[in-house]
Amino acid sequence: MDSTTARNQAAPSRTREQALALAREQALDAAERLFYGRGIQAVGMDDIRGDSGVSLKRLYQLFPAKEHLVDAYLERRDIRWRARLAEHVDRWREPERRILAVFDWLGLWFAEPGFRGCAWINAYGELGTGSERVAARTRAHKTAFRTYLAGLVSAAGRPAALGDQLFLLAEGAMVTAGIDGSAEPAAQARSAARLLLEAGK
Amino acid sequence: MDSTTARNQAAPSRTREQALALAREQALDAAERLFYGRGIQAVGMDDIRGDSGVSLKRLYQLFPAKEHLVDAYLERRDIRWRARLAEHVDRWREPERRILAVFDWLGLWFAEPGFRGCAWINAYGELGTGSERVAARTRAHKTAFRTYLAGLVSAAGRPAALGDQLFLLAEGAMVTAGIDGSAEPAAQARSAARLLLEAGK
Repeated sequence: MDSTTARNQAAPSRTREQALALAREQALDAAERLFYGRGIQAVGMDDIRGDSGVSLKRLYQLFPAKEHLVDAYLERRDIRWRARLAEHVDRWREPERRILAVFDWLGLWFAEPGFRGCAWINAYGELGTGSERVAARTRAHKTAFRTYLAGLVSAAGRPAALGDQLFLLAEGAMVTAGIDGSAEPAAQARSAARLLLEAGK
Repeated sequence: MDSTTARNQAAPSRTREQALALAREQALDAAERLFYGRGIQAVGMDDIRGDSGVSLKRLYQLFPAKEHLVDAYLERRDIRWRARLAEHVDRWREPERRILAVFDWLGLWFAEPGFRGCAWINAYGELGTGSERVAARTRAHKTAFRTYLAGLVSAAGRPAALGDQLFLLAEGAMVTAGIDGSAEPAAQARSAARLLLEAGK
């Protein structure tokens, strides 16, 4: 215990909490890099240890099983993914422009280095039948994205069915961009979205 | 050697070929049931042996590594999947009706017992970065489906861009039906396809 913590009785536990929080972020950063990049089943806790520098003992303290780490990685990514999408869409005020902005953002995301498709679609493909936790996390993420699109469609005064159609276009673009390693599907989906918007007028 | 084969010098090798062909089909049937139903990495060669009744020795004679069995399963399924789709579409002659029939067929497929999404999207999610063979097989299947759609669109005298848009709708419907366990996305994609067909008139 150094002199700083000695001056404050609450400090030791706060320091321990901070260390755990830091280790958690480091573990999740490594989990995101490795699980997203290589697939979940190809990566073991030992790979996470090696990449994060967090000891196995602490890893298992934080995540009693690998499934918990997968779940926490998908949960953290969901929050960031949706925040980034909303931030991009919020650059526009005109309701129909906001809908098209979703597809612009998909194009930016697909063009990022290391893009390898939708983390949840990939995780579901790997573990959807074996892990109820991963299946539930995937469904929650997709429901949140669909609800977000529904809100944009409703704000534009369009029928709810349009929201479902735009959702399918976005999902098709994600999966195709992931398989082909191309950003082109975002532009194709955007063209279709624009036609559907015009068709409903 | 029994009296039948003794009468025909070519028979022993023909019998061996037939036995191998039968074992191959039995192994592929088991591979399709188990890989599609549970995921590829969750299933080992020993599970295939148990389900198919084909010995491990013969399995490895036919498929030197599990990756070869995965590849052969996806190849055989591709041929059957596309034949069934074409058979359904061929019930109609009117070019635009043939396009909508693709989405009708997706709805029938999604409603089948044991439907668990697109085998290639799932396989790619599992192994796309680890197996160049699976990645290539997935791309070949998706290219074949996209080319088929392009042919229907061209026969209807519509622009090639429509084919790409319909492809994304179909892919989005497949992945969403797989995650949600619902046939509804096929009807939603069909509605969008019909609007896109009308928009282009």
